Amino acid sequence: MRREIAEQPQRWADLLDQQRTALRDARDRIRSHPPRLVLFVARGTSDHAALYASYLVQTTLRVPAASASPSVVTLYGARLSLDDVLVVAVSQSGESPDLVSFVRMAQANGATTLALTNAPASALARAADQVIDLCAGEETAVAATKTYTAQLLASAALFAADDVASLLPGLPAVAEEVLQASSSAAAELAIAYRFANRVVTAARGYSAASAHEMALKLMETSYISAHGMSSADLLHGPVAMLDESVPLLCFASHGPDAAEIDELVRRADQHGVDVEVVGDGTVAGRRLPPLLPASIRPELRPLLEIIPAQLLAAEIALERGLDPDSPRGLSKVTRTY
Amino acid sequence: MRREIAEQPQRWADLLDQQRTALRDARDRIRSHPPRLVLFVARGTSDHAALYASYLVQTTLRVPAASASPSVVTLYGARLSLDDVLVVAVSQSGESPDLVSFVRMAQANGATTLALTNAPASALARAADQVIDLCAGEETAVAATKTYTAQLLASAALFAADDVASLLPGLPAVAEEVLQASSSAAAELAIAYRFANRVVTAARGYSAASAHEMALKLMETSYISAHGMSSADLLHGPVAMLDESVPLLCFASHGPDAAEIDELVRRADQHGVDVEVVGDGTVAGRRLPPLLPASIRPELRPLLEIIPAQLLAAEIALERGLDPDSPRGLSKVTRTY
Repeated sequence: MRREIAEQPQRWADLLDQQRTALRDARDRIRSHPPRLVLFVARGTSDHAALYASYLVQTTLRVPAASASPSVVTLYGARLSLDDVLVVAVSQSGESPDLVSFVRMAQANGATTLALTNAPASALARAADQVIDLCAGEETAVAATKTYTAQLLASAALFAADDVASLLPGLPAVAEEVLQASSSAAAELAIAYRFANRVVTAARGYSAASAHEMALKLMETSYISAHGMSSADLLHGPVAMLDESVPLLCFASHGPDAAEIDELVRRADQHGVDVEVVGDGTVAGRRLPPLLPASIRPELRPLLEIIPAQLLAAEIALERGLDPDSPRGLSKVTRTY
Repeated sequence: MRREIAEQPQRWADLLDQQRTALRDARDRIRSHPPRLVLFVARGTSDHAALYASYLVQTTLRVPAASASPSVVTLYGARLSLDDVLVVAVSQSGESPDLVSFVRMAQANGATTLALTNAPASALARAADQVIDLCAGEETAVAATKTYTAQLLASAALFAADDVASLLPGLPAVAEEVLQASSSAAAELAIAYRFANRVVTAARGYSAASAHEMALKLMETSYISAHGMSSADLLHGPVAMLDESVPLLCFASHGPDAAEIDELVRRADQHGVDVEVVGDGTVAGRRLPPLLPASIRPELRPLLEIIPAQLLAAEIALERGLDPDSPRGLSKVTRTY
């Protein structure tokens, strides 16, 4: 898992290089024939990348976007009217039958379909009209890391505004800096979570995906009951869970989300909650130093801020004597119907 | 909370009676001018009702449907193109500014807007084109119960197929039976969860809303780290959390979801996980008897199966010496921006 985390800058460079034409063609097609709706289908980690992508679609293209529930098709046989809809399936393995079923239903009912997958020969890739190969290389740790950020990167290349997309070639170098800055900080912080069995992770906007993904990594590698959520959803009920035995881990840097996270951190502080913040220092936690450069655009932060979180999940598992590469009860390819 | 749970059958009868014309008009309008997309905006409990409603829209009307993220508007100022889109805002209090902002943006950009709220004079109701008053009466417990099922009932009245909608007038009587059957069972089962501080709740399809809502009630009233999720999402990672210290609580009756839940229960059994099932006995747990009649259509089960779950959440809080009416850190109206 550590090795795959460290590979990410190189994999991003590979993706931007090897898929340059495919990404540009798909990007141009979306702009020349804007869909009236973008529906994502994905599970687990890939659905967190889809959440990020859905924000980009809405803020950049003014097109509504959301994740679909494959079970409306697989359980209930729904045939949706999808003329002028773009369906984007996001999957590491490309082998989950429910995603393939949704894509086939979508094609038969008017949609254009695009697959973002690390397996360009998979059933999903064969079913979709267009394919972006995530170029993440073989991922052997069960907990996905480099595939996730490749999904974010491909999403940004497809859906971000021109001035944001133009920054992507510079990201691998920034990611290297973040990796360097994070590795010892993550190992030190992992000690504090040695005996935590409940954690809440929170963020908002583009970074909500980071909160969800961090929580899933903690669940998968360390069996922690980790709740990842938007800070707004947290305030609508689950915030009652927080106390001195349930630490809060936030993602926040400068940007329109910072004020709300700052308010959440103050409120948590008043209740004796242990708070950490992954970010550029705009909002401060207890132990972590600023790990991100302050110059990063909010749209691109999810690619960088998840790196310390991935490292932390791996370090916590090791601190607990667990093997983060092979969590109990999980296999690399999950087939759901 | 117990009293408000017990009120539900009467409140449902009130809603069907007092909103008969408003529900019929809205239902007719949706069918005579089908939207190309239904977007729900909601938070917390109301978003679980929206999840249920989005399944109904997709399976019955063949129209794509999903929950929107208000923060694309409130954080990033997005102006979505929403011609021929129906935006449905679901809120107990009708006072959360982010929902009002989203509805205003939607109206200004082509959408038709509908509010389902318990406060027909609220800011949200005033902003929307049409309003359904949930008629749940004043809800004083912070943890919403009767408002939630009123939201489900209004959703079924608006979006379910004719043969399902025609069954709604009979539901209050069935709910009375479920209440009777559940109250002592919930009190007995609560003892088993006295010291559980982590729980996973799971279901699929229409019932996925029940799993999410049950988890939120456990978080709010008993401060349990409860994860509610579709069984398919559970299998894509979080299932690694389950062990003898993390009980699994499922919703399953006869229907297309039962086989998957049955498989999940078998797998959990093999790992020594404590399993309970709320349902009609099609899938069996350890302690709970069948609490639902086997004749209930899967589309309508979420209204009934949540009743034992609400009672259980209240009983667990009482068993722990907590006050389920006034959870720490929460107020009845949550304003998020």
